[in-house]
Amino acid sequence: KYSTGVRKVTLIPGHGIGPEITVAVQKIFEAAKVPIEWDEVDVTAVRGPDGKFGIPQRAIDSVNENKIGLKGPLMTPVGKGYRSLNLALRKEFDLYANVRPCKSLDGIKTLYDNVDVVTIRENTEGEYSGIEHEIVDGVVQSIKLITEEASKRVAEFAFQFARDNKRKKVTAVHKANIMRMSDGLFLRCCRDLATKYPDIKFEERYLDTVCLNMVQDPSKFDVLVMPNLYGDIMSDMCSGLVGGLGLTPSGNIGKNGALFESVHGTAPAIAGQDKANPTALLLSGVMMLRHMRFLEEADKIESACFTVLREGKVLTEDLGGNSTCSAFTSEIIKNLA
Amino acid sequence: KYSTGVRKVTLIPGHGIGPEITVAVQKIFEAAKVPIEWDEVDVTAVRGPDGKFGIPQRAIDSVNENKIGLKGPLMTPVGKGYRSLNLALRKEFDLYANVRPCKSLDGIKTLYDNVDVVTIRENTEGEYSGIEHEIVDGVVQSIKLITEEASKRVAEFAFQFARDNKRKKVTAVHKANIMRMSDGLFLRCCRDLATKYPDIKFEERYLDTVCLNMVQDPSKFDVLVMPNLYGDIMSDMCSGLVGGLGLTPSGNIGKNGALFESVHGTAPAIAGQDKANPTALLLSGVMMLRHMRFLEEADKIESACFTVLREGKVLTEDLGGNSTCSAFTSEIIKNLA
Ligand SMILES: CC(C)[C@H](C(=O)O)[C@@H](O)C(=O)O
Ligand SMILES: CC(C)[C@H](C(=O)O)[C@@H](O)C(=O)O
Repeated sequence: KYSTGVRKVTLIPGHGIGPEITVAVQKIFEAAKVPIEWDEVDVTAVRGPDGKFGIPQRAIDSVNENKIGLKGPLMTPVGKGYRSLNLALRKEFDLYANVRPCKSLDGIKTLYDNVDVVTIRENTEGEYSGIEHEIVDGVVQSIKLITEEASKRVAEFAFQFARDNKRKKVTAVHKANIMRMSDGLFLRCCRDLATKYPDIKFEERYLDTVCLNMVQDPSKFDVLVMPNLYGDIMSDMCSGLVGGLGLTPSGNIGKNGALFESVHGTAPAIAGQDKANPTALLLSGVMMLRHMRFLEEADKIESACFTVLREGKVLTEDLGGNSTCSAFTSEIIKNLA
Repeated sequence: KYSTGVRKVTLIPGHGIGPEITVAVQKIFEAAKVPIEWDEVDVTAVRGPDGKFGIPQRAIDSVNENKIGLKGPLMTPVGKGYRSLNLALRKEFDLYANVRPCKSLDGIKTLYDNVDVVTIRENTEGEYSGIEHEIVDGVVQSIKLITEEASKRVAEFAFQFARDNKRKKVTAVHKANIMRMSDGLFLRCCRDLATKYPDIKFEERYLDTVCLNMVQDPSKFDVLVMPNLYGDIMSDMCSGLVGGLGLTPSGNIGKNGALFESVHGTAPAIAGQDKANPTALLLSGVMMLRHMRFLEEADKIESACFTVLREGKVLTEDLGGNSTCSAFTSEIIKNLA
């Protein structure tokens, strides 16, 4: 059940504030004696043989070898031929389930104090298929692709996640009243899987209704599973309820690998100034440790981080404090004991 | 500028609580001496010559003749061959702009007190195209259709709406980082129109970011314009911020007609019991009156409704009161003077 022995982990510091929050996480992991050896790689767009920009081979090899990674924010240059590297990574390693927990944090004052939801987002297809056509001038179609295979595996993931994490309910979020065939297929897969998990309550809700209910009473929800774009929206919304992307972790899980990442941007305005908040990346690292069954280390780090947030004495500027990233990091390390 | 003379208006009471909230609106309009003659029609699915269920011809004729209507909630029977009649109406009359204002109301306690946003939703295409295919077994595609024509007219509508209503800013909401061609086209149309409205501030934001920012600080937003599905979600979310669908109005506007409707459901559980809250339909009626330039009557009714909500003495059960729909209605009438 518990993992021991040193494991290699791919580390993608990323751009902007990425490197400094990555150092923060490394320091905290080291202080917590996490038996991890980092394999640091750069992910900056490189031009491939097809002329398109993509992930450097060295990074691909590293993830393929280690099967697990932690990544900071990546900058995608804007313009033709560029694709989001965040998406490219999810696709390259077939990381089909995107897991984004949002939980109210003591010490982080928002309008809500009872949020504890996990968005499980289908991460490989849907509105993110990338298939688009201009039919005639001024008429464009984008294709939302839903397959039984991808829907089933993410539905199964959601139910298994709920069971493993002692959660009570899975809500399938959809617009099958509008996209009857595509969301209909997704929904049917969820229903099928629900019958295999009689211990988990299952419900299905329209996306618009969930948005409305979520802002009124988040305690109505537990685990949510949905197609790609809906998960993109829902997870950001839920993150907003508990304090924003600077605080919420995320994991992309596949059969042959998993990549944990902070979802916030590169924040170029404060990059290199020791002002960034490393919490989202740190908590993504904690998710990663749990995934690797380093449960004790995960608990220790998480609880130290929560303590520092709760006490509120040493906080970065985005949290209303005036401490540096380094000071915040040291404070967490102090609380590891 | 002001309208005078009796005008005929199509009235679709709808199902469930529809008839009783419609009677409430009729009573209030009569007491306010609104010079309207109602042309009441039934919209219940009828089987057309093509075997599909649709809107009765009498209702179509009425809207075509009057070019303006007010409607309560419709029940769409579930099953093959049935289409949502709400959508069918929008399509039939090419009501291309769906306008959904959400404003914090005195007396309605929610977590937010500073909401004042208007969602302008493209109402004819996008993810609601209805075009879907099963490619092979277990592989389905739904087509999101974006045209320059529809994008331009809704963008123009949004800017003109902002100007007419002394609003300061229009935000185009999109995922052009993912759906580069379709949302890209929509966004370009918004940018084009923005140059023709230099008096209105323009900004463009990702849908996920808007969801996050909206729940954290709705005062960041003013008028929002976006493709069909995004508007469906966003307007429900914003409605949640100010108290829910029982309180927020909506209008579907086209070149040759306009249909104002409450967006909530038929609430079969309380139908016929004089318990329903008529506010959403009433405020939709107020929007309609403004559209018809019955400005004085609109102001009078709206302010009476707001007074009753603010005073909080006579409220329906959904608002935490214990009054009937009739009592609430009478109270509004009392406040018209
Ligand atoms: C950066 C962007 C392409 C990405 C997405 O749309 O998935 C982001 O919003 C996310 O949620 O990880
Ligand atoms: C009833 C449903 C088809 C409709 C929609 O999806 O547009 C509703 O949610 C709305 O917002 O009017």
